[in-house]
Amino acid sequence: MKYSESFIYTQREAPKIAECQSHKLLLRAGFLTMVSSGIYAYLPLGYRVLNNINRIIRKYMDKAGAQELFMSALQPIDIWQKTGRDKDLKDVMFTFEDRKKRKLCLGPTHEEEITEIARRFLFSHKQLPCTLYQIQTKFRDEPRPRFGLMRSCEFIMKDAYSFDRDQAGLDLSYEKMLTAYKNIFRDFGLDFVISEADSGAMGGSVSHEFMVEAAIGEDMLYRCPKENKFYKDTRICPVCKGKLKESKFVELGHVFQLGTKYSLAQEGLFLDENGSRLPFVMGCYGIGVSRVLSAIAEVSSDKKGLIWPKQVAPYDLTLIVLADEHRISALNIADKLNDLGISVLVDERNEAAGVKFNDAYLIGNPYIAVMGKKYSSHKSLDLEVRSNKESKEFTAESLISFLKDEYAG
Amino acid sequence: MKYSESFIYTQREAPKIAECQSHKLLLRAGFLTMVSSGIYAYLPLGYRVLNNINRIIRKYMDKAGAQELFMSALQPIDIWQKTGRDKDLKDVMFTFEDRKKRKLCLGPTHEEEITEIARRFLFSHKQLPCTLYQIQTKFRDEPRPRFGLMRSCEFIMKDAYSFDRDQAGLDLSYEKMLTAYKNIFRDFGLDFVISEADSGAMGGSVSHEFMVEAAIGEDMLYRCPKENKFYKDTRICPVCKGKLKESKFVELGHVFQLGTKYSLAQEGLFLDENGSRLPFVMGCYGIGVSRVLSAIAEVSSDKKGLIWPKQVAPYDLTLIVLADEHRISALNIADKLNDLGISVLVDERNEAAGVKFNDAYLIGNPYIAVMGKKYSSHKSLDLEVRSNKESKEFTAESLISFLKDEYAG
Repeated sequence: MKYSESFIYTQREAPKIAECQSHKLLLRAGFLTMVSSGIYAYLPLGYRVLNNINRIIRKYMDKAGAQELFMSALQPIDIWQKTGRDKDLKDVMFTFEDRKKRKLCLGPTHEEEITEIARRFLFSHKQLPCTLYQIQTKFRDEPRPRFGLMRSCEFIMKDAYSFDRDQAGLDLSYEKMLTAYKNIFRDFGLDFVISEADSGAMGGSVSHEFMVEAAIGEDMLYRCPKENKFYKDTRICPVCKGKLKESKFVELGHVFQLGTKYSLAQEGLFLDENGSRLPFVMGCYGIGVSRVLSAIAEVSSDKKGLIWPKQVAPYDLTLIVLADEHRISALNIADKLNDLGISVLVDERNEAAGVKFNDAYLIGNPYIAVMGKKYSSHKSLDLEVRSNKESKEFTAESLISFLKDEYAG
Repeated sequence: MKYSESFIYTQREAPKIAECQSHKLLLRAGFLTMVSSGIYAYLPLGYRVLNNINRIIRKYMDKAGAQELFMSALQPIDIWQKTGRDKDLKDVMFTFEDRKKRKLCLGPTHEEEITEIARRFLFSHKQLPCTLYQIQTKFRDEPRPRFGLMRSCEFIMKDAYSFDRDQAGLDLSYEKMLTAYKNIFRDFGLDFVISEADSGAMGGSVSHEFMVEAAIGEDMLYRCPKENKFYKDTRICPVCKGKLKESKFVELGHVFQLGTKYSLAQEGLFLDENGSRLPFVMGCYGIGVSRVLSAIAEVSSDKKGLIWPKQVAPYDLTLIVLADEHRISALNIADKLNDLGISVLVDERNEAAGVKFNDAYLIGNPYIAVMGKKYSSHKSLDLEVRSNKESKEFTAESLISFLKDEYAG
């Protein structure tokens, strides 16, 4: 992608609405723009990161045998009346009537809808276990929208739902998802913590939260500095009896064992070998996709800007071209890298070197290569690793082969 | 994908709600399920087709230099008040208030929101031309939801918007999009017609519709059987003076030259070389993604079921395994084809041959291979082309190499 033809517009100052580091940087670097309080549009850079996050999620969901579908955002309120959650979630659910006075809501989550779908298609124990997932926009009438995508009225979730014949089946499905989640969060490049959590309004018992430490977090955990383990409800380490350190966390993923709450309320029943009708034993598994985007930005930046982990970065490389005479060579290098599946943002704009460097640091692609005087004199480029600022000289060929190795597998 | 592990559940009879061939078949074959009148969920098979349609659209949008973003579904009503379209579209727009009495709507389209984004980032003639697009769920309080995805309350659209400095620029951007659309609709495998259309409520002058002939169509065109050309407002051919034949069409794509309607109303202005502030000259370009899915199903089926064109089919091949002893060989063949990028639905269910054949025809993947007695006796498979029922005998190796050639490029 040529920078001059891209829709990438950075700003020197963060808009006044920005309340935290990630929000400031995502707005300044042109990843997001605010449509209205708590409502955002993803600009092309942000959309690329979103896609990378989704790609990682799909990889491990598919690997775990989950199948992707796409449910509706509009939901009839009557399916919520079956579980009573129309009342429980009343305050955060957008509800309205259509022209025929049909009562609708915008799905803040999809347990009820997926249970309706499951009961329509899954009749027999032979069809179980079954895990379905979707990546979709959800809606929440948020009392205090904050921190950009961290707490917004419209956000993207991956939500998966498992259907099993019994608790032993659910345990297996749940374990598979836990493994998938560990792989997913590792590939996000996040230093995450898993905590056993209170599942509250979801109605189940066992649940785990995937969390990332961040100053803007709203969940509190207590860490033992000796063991580096996390506890939720105690301030004294049960192992070494030392005092625990308070830390704030952001919740990014949450897996629940729902049990039969929804299947009983919605008559989600299947036939077992003996002809008995039994309720599905269900699990649900969420990842806040847009929140992950914000969380990565929150924990991975420096004074100069964002620092994207390799797997989710909008581009793999920013190639800064300082002299117009190197433009064609730069585009050639970019073409060769593209053929290897390595994406390049070629900054061939008619701008001062300082502007280009500032933008490259602000946008935060993992590698920054510079074609400047050294390229004129002896065909060499400087490659800087955004995360640790290490810099090395390369020829075009050795740069390509270095990046090929870096992105292999 | 093993059929026995998939979420593919076909039905013998179409649900009573189904009103036309595509609606019946998509429900019977397990591509869709109705959540409520005019509201559908895409089951895994339908979601795969949707993704293929989107892949084709993205290919040609990106090739035309358009950049993908992702706007919000929730929109503040005040941006609609600027153009007066809050009134024009009042009847079909879902509107409601949030807890802070902020008036919101669910976007039935995004001209207003994209114009707000453009005026925030595009200041100078140097940033033009610029074309942005998204693929997103839209909402419409439909008075008469009909024909499944054809006319529903929630549907998926690709909408693109171009910004130019003048009419000459718009003409170029528009032409590029017309070319992209021709490629897209060709790749959909649709026999389409382009008609110059009345742009009505969109506020522009020049516009073209991409239409497909179908009995359930709501647009009427008149065809000259001699020339095979289409006319909109005359029943006598202006060329051969013969009587024209009436045909019904479904509109799947629509491109408009919007001009300055939105930019003037929303102060979408840029600076030209002389320091004058001028309004963007805009175009907009829509494709009804979910409607395309329905339209393909509507025009491409037979008594036995759906017949998906190669580019959009949920899987490339259904491999029917009639004897359990061939199960491992079948999965081996599928693995080899998967490595070539050819997707296979392996029907290794414990079901009667008739059930498997019926489902393969109903689902409509382009090729159906059968491992039966001939495989036991002399290792050969029958391959049937779903669209023309031609059948040919292959060894496993020659089948793989035949399909490789069929899907090359």
